[in-house]
Amino acid sequence: EVFRQRFRQFQYQQAAGPREAFNSLWELCSQWLKPTIHSKEEILELLVLEQFLTILPSEIETWVRLYRPENRERALALVEDLQRELEIPEQQIHSLPATNNVYFSTSL
Amino acid sequence: EVFRQRFRQFQYQQAAGPREAFNSLWELCSQWLKPTIHSKEEILELLVLEQFLTILPSEIETWVRLYRPENRERALALVEDLQRELEIPEQQIHSLPATNNVYFSTSL
Repeated sequence: EVFRQRFRQFQYQQAAGPREAFNSLWELCSQWLKPTIHSKEEILELLVLEQFLTILPSEIETWVRLYRPENRERALALVEDLQRELEIPEQQIHSLPATNNVYFSTSL
Repeated sequence: EVFRQRFRQFQYQQAAGPREAFNSLWELCSQWLKPTIHSKEEILELLVLEQFLTILPSEIETWVRLYRPENRERALALVEDLQRELEIPEQQIHSLPATNNVYFSTSL
């Protein structure tokens, strides 16, 4: 995760020019994805996992990232656990009487 | 580029659940990076190129993206060309008299 962040957070201004920037990104990307030891499938899994975490609804994303899942199964298990946990409170919220707007309407 | 965008723009809500979302992302990522025909080095080049374009200063990025560079050398050549082009106008802008704030100061 540290290597992924270094790759994603590298800034253009940190390099002397475009070639140096590209080379630094290449180096950081290699440190993250480790193409010398990882298979193509493992590289793809890391990329898809990153994108999966990015597109999660923000409340789920925040929670799942706390556990820093390092593979597909761990990430999916975390999301599924949380969705099960969230189902009950969500129904409770929906069944509450709709009196939430009182504070806003009385101020008019 | 179309495949890259489809991968990056896929939304969690388009899938029935987390497993379906992960599988769709995997499919889209494979369509973009083509692991069956690309080497690990070619996959890394696509990833680094994407990140390189992302971190370019926005005025350069907009211009370079118009040409949709598909490899490192094309992208670097475009940036270097543009930086050379920009050097002269930038000096001209800096040597202009500093009268730009007139409209703001007279309104006080």
